[in-house]
Amino acid sequence: MKRFLSLMGAAVMAASTVFAQESDSIMFRKISTEIMMHGKSYDNLRVLCKDVGHRISGSKEAAKAVEWGKQAMEAAGADRVFLQACDVPYWYRGKESLMLKVGVRGQYRKVKALTLGNSQGTDGKPIEAAVLMVRNFQEFEKLTPAQVKGKIIFFNYRFRQDFTFTFQGYGDGVVYRWATPSVAAAKGAVGVIIRSMSTGADDFPHTGGMHYMDSVSNIKIPEMALGNYSADTLEQYFAEGKPVTAKMQSDCRMMPDKVRSYNVVGEIKGSEMPEKIITVGGHLDSWDVGEGAQDDGAGCVQSIEIIRAFKALGIKPKCTIRAVLFMNEENGTKGGEAYADSAVKNRENHVLAIETDAGGFSPRGIGLEMSDAEKKKIRDYAPLFLPYGVYDFTREEGGTDIGPMKRKLNVPLAGLLPDSQRYFDVHHTNNDVFENVNHRELKLGSVVLAQLIWLVDQKGL
Amino acid sequence: MKRFLSLMGAAVMAASTVFAQESDSIMFRKISTEIMMHGKSYDNLRVLCKDVGHRISGSKEAAKAVEWGKQAMEAAGADRVFLQACDVPYWYRGKESLMLKVGVRGQYRKVKALTLGNSQGTDGKPIEAAVLMVRNFQEFEKLTPAQVKGKIIFFNYRFRQDFTFTFQGYGDGVVYRWATPSVAAAKGAVGVIIRSMSTGADDFPHTGGMHYMDSVSNIKIPEMALGNYSADTLEQYFAEGKPVTAKMQSDCRMMPDKVRSYNVVGEIKGSEMPEKIITVGGHLDSWDVGEGAQDDGAGCVQSIEIIRAFKALGIKPKCTIRAVLFMNEENGTKGGEAYADSAVKNRENHVLAIETDAGGFSPRGIGLEMSDAEKKKIRDYAPLFLPYGVYDFTREEGGTDIGPMKRKLNVPLAGLLPDSQRYFDVHHTNNDVFENVNHRELKLGSVVLAQLIWLVDQKGL
Repeated sequence: MKRFLSLMGAAVMAASTVFAQESDSIMFRKISTEIMMHGKSYDNLRVLCKDVGHRISGSKEAAKAVEWGKQAMEAAGADRVFLQACDVPYWYRGKESLMLKVGVRGQYRKVKALTLGNSQGTDGKPIEAAVLMVRNFQEFEKLTPAQVKGKIIFFNYRFRQDFTFTFQGYGDGVVYRWATPSVAAAKGAVGVIIRSMSTGADDFPHTGGMHYMDSVSNIKIPEMALGNYSADTLEQYFAEGKPVTAKMQSDCRMMPDKVRSYNVVGEIKGSEMPEKIITVGGHLDSWDVGEGAQDDGAGCVQSIEIIRAFKALGIKPKCTIRAVLFMNEENGTKGGEAYADSAVKNRENHVLAIETDAGGFSPRGIGLEMSDAEKKKIRDYAPLFLPYGVYDFTREEGGTDIGPMKRKLNVPLAGLLPDSQRYFDVHHTNNDVFENVNHRELKLGSVVLAQLIWLVDQKGL
Repeated sequence: MKRFLSLMGAAVMAASTVFAQESDSIMFRKISTEIMMHGKSYDNLRVLCKDVGHRISGSKEAAKAVEWGKQAMEAAGADRVFLQACDVPYWYRGKESLMLKVGVRGQYRKVKALTLGNSQGTDGKPIEAAVLMVRNFQEFEKLTPAQVKGKIIFFNYRFRQDFTFTFQGYGDGVVYRWATPSVAAAKGAVGVIIRSMSTGADDFPHTGGMHYMDSVSNIKIPEMALGNYSADTLEQYFAEGKPVTAKMQSDCRMMPDKVRSYNVVGEIKGSEMPEKIITVGGHLDSWDVGEGAQDDGAGCVQSIEIIRAFKALGIKPKCTIRAVLFMNEENGTKGGEAYADSAVKNRENHVLAIETDAGGFSPRGIGLEMSDAEKKKIRDYAPLFLPYGVYDFTREEGGTDIGPMKRKLNVPLAGLLPDSQRYFDVHHTNNDVFENVNHRELKLGSVVLAQLIWLVDQKGL
C-alpha cells in the first residue's frame, strides 16, 4: 500500500473531558516521545533473552537474571536498588521423551512434547501403556475405572479460538492442564497427555503449571503436552480406529529443597510524599523453555523503562515509584508474597500496584481491580489514553504477583492489557523468544504504564 | 503468566445503544465464531505466498496470482467470478548492487540495498561517485550545485517513531522516497541513496514507489534504499568525517509496453436489491520482494473470506456483495481505475466500497471517507464492534484502489484500520512473508469486514 497522499491529513483523535487538561495530554505526549524515540526496553530484553535465556525459579539462570535485573535497574538510574529475599521451589525437567506407536505392528516414533511444570517424571523407567482419547471431562466421566486402569489418557480439549480476548479461551481450557493428572489417576490411569493450551497454528508444545490434588488422588502420574499439529495427528489415529500405545519417559522432579532467590526492586524516591508508593512490575522467572521473552521478560523491561523514562524526562514524582521484578510467578508466587509481606511488616502505604504480564504487545486497555470510586477516577481520564490505542477500562484485572498486595493490604490493582491475539501462540514454549517481540509494541506498553503512573502520582487515587 | 483463576470471570464489555439491537450483536458473534473457527484466509494466504510468491504488476507471477484468485473465489463459493481487464506498467528490477568504499584507501564492500520501484537503473554501467549526506530537504537546499554536481546524495531522513499511528510517520517521510531523485538531479547529482521508509529495528531495505518529476528535472537518476542498520553505519562514517564513495549498478527499467492484466471479482448476488453493490477488496499485486504477505496478500484473502463466511452462515445479503482483488495498486492503480470505469459505464449503483490494505493485524478501527450523515449512521453502531477490539471511527480513510470510485461516482468509502505498529517493519521488504502474518489477527480483520458489510447490507447507508 502507498496511500501517503490521502493520509497526510489523517484526523487525530481529539477526545477530551473536563477532567483531562491540555497540560496532561502534553505530558502524555512527552512520555510517549521519550520512550518511543529513546527507550531502552528492547535492548534490555535482548540481553535478558540472549545472555540469560530462560530462567525457571531456583535455577542458576534465575540467579543470573537477578544479577541482570539489579544492573539494569542501576543503569536506568534508580535512586535505590535492592533485593528482596524469597525461598522458591525448584522444578527440574531433565531429559524427557514421548514416543507413540500406532497400530499393532507399528514402530515407536518420538513426538515433540513437553512435560508440564511441577509434574512428576517417570523415575528413569519408561511408562508404556495404551492411550485412550477423550475430548473433555464429560467424556472422561463416562469411562469406568476398568476402562481407564493402566492407560494413558489423552485429554484432547481444544483451545476455544472463538473468544476474541484469548485470555477467556485460556481461562476456559487451562483446567485441562492443571487438574487432569489427579482426575485421571483417581480412576487408575498411569499418565496423561494433553493438547497444549495453545492458539498456535503450529506444533510447539506448551508447558505451564499443573498441580496434584491430594483430595482427588494421592497418586502422582506424569503429564505431557503436545503441540496442536501433533495433537491433530493423534486425534486422527483415533478417528481412524487405530490403537495407539505411548511410551513416556522423563527425569522431571520437584527438588526437595527450596532455593533462596530474590525480587529485584528499583525505586525513585518521592519528592513530596515519599511514604506513598506506586508499584509497577513483571516477573523475572520464566518456564524452562524458550527465552521467556513475552512471558514475562517484556513486563520486566517495561517496568525498568519507567525508571529510565522518568529520570530522562526530569519527572520528580510526588510519591515513591517502584519497579519490581518479581520472582516465581510461574509456580509459587513466592516473590509476590514476599513483597506483600514486607509491605505489611514495614507498614508501607501503597497507592496502587500495577502488573504487566500479558506480553509486550500493543496496549489496548488497563484492567482495574479496585473500588468503584477508584475505577471511576481512572476512567475519567480514559480519553487521555485513546491516542495511544488504549480504550478498554472495563476488565477486572490486576496480576498474579500483585494479588497478595490486594489480599493482605487491600491495595488497588491495575493490569496492562495488551492485544491478546498472539500471546497463547508463544507463551510457555520454545518459541517465546526475543525475535517474537516487536520493538514498537513493547515500547508502547511502557508508554501507557508510565502515563498511568504519572497520572496517579499527580492526581492521587 | 498463569492468572487463569482471576480471569475466569473477566467482565465482558456490554456496550449498547438504542441503535444496536441484541439480534445484531448475536449476528456479529456468529460471524466472528464462523471465521475464527473455520476461516480459510490463513490457508489461502499460505498458498498465495508460497506457491505464487511476490507478484509485481505485469510479471508472470502476477498472471499466476490472477489464476489463483479466480480459483480461490470459486472455492469460496462465489455465485459468479469474473476478471476485469486493465493494462498495467511492468517495472523490471533485474540485477542490482550497491558498493561502498570508506576512506581514501578503502575497499569497496557490498551493502544490502534495494532500488526503488519505477526507478531508472544504470544501463549496465556502474555509477561511481562520492557520497554526500543530508538529513532532510532543508540541508539539501543549502548545498550549491557545485557541491552536488557529480555526487550521489544520501538522504538520511529518519522515519519518525514518535507517532503512535505509524501511517503518520510514513506520511511524514515518504516524500524522501518519492521525490528525492528529481530534486537531487536538478542540482546535478548522479544518484540517490535513501534511508528506507522503515520502522524496523533491523537491516531490511524497503522498496516502494518513486517517480520522476519532469517539472523539477528531466534527468532520471537511480535511487536505492538502505535498511536502518546500514543507514546507521553510513551515517556514522560521516560523523567520523570519513569520505565515502559509492558504486551503484542496476538493470532496473520500466518496460516500454503495458501488459494486459486483470482484477479478480467474486460476487454474491443480492436477494432483494441485486442492483445495489457493496465492494470489499485488497490488492493482488505486490512489490517484487518477499511474498507480499501483509501488503497485500492479507487484504486479498480477507476479502475472499467474506464470500466464504456469508455462504457458510447461509446469509443471503439483500445487496450484491463483491470481493475484489485489485491489480496494480503499487505503481499505477490501473485496476482501481478500471473497476470504477466499469461501474460508470454499466451505471452501477454502489452503496459502499471498503478497502483492506494496511496489513493483516488486529483490527482497531474503520476509516470513513463519506458524508457526515453516512459517518453518523455507521458510528451509531460502533458499540457493536467494541467486543472485537474496534473502537476508532474517527479517521478519514478509504484506500488507494477504491479512491477512483469516490472521485468518479462519489461512492462512500471505508478502510479497515488494523494495529499499525508492525506494518512499516515489513512492508515492501524481503521480510514481508507468510511467517510474519498471525493467523488470529488476519482472521479477526475478516470478522470486522464481514460485520461491517452485513450491517450496511441490513441497515443501508
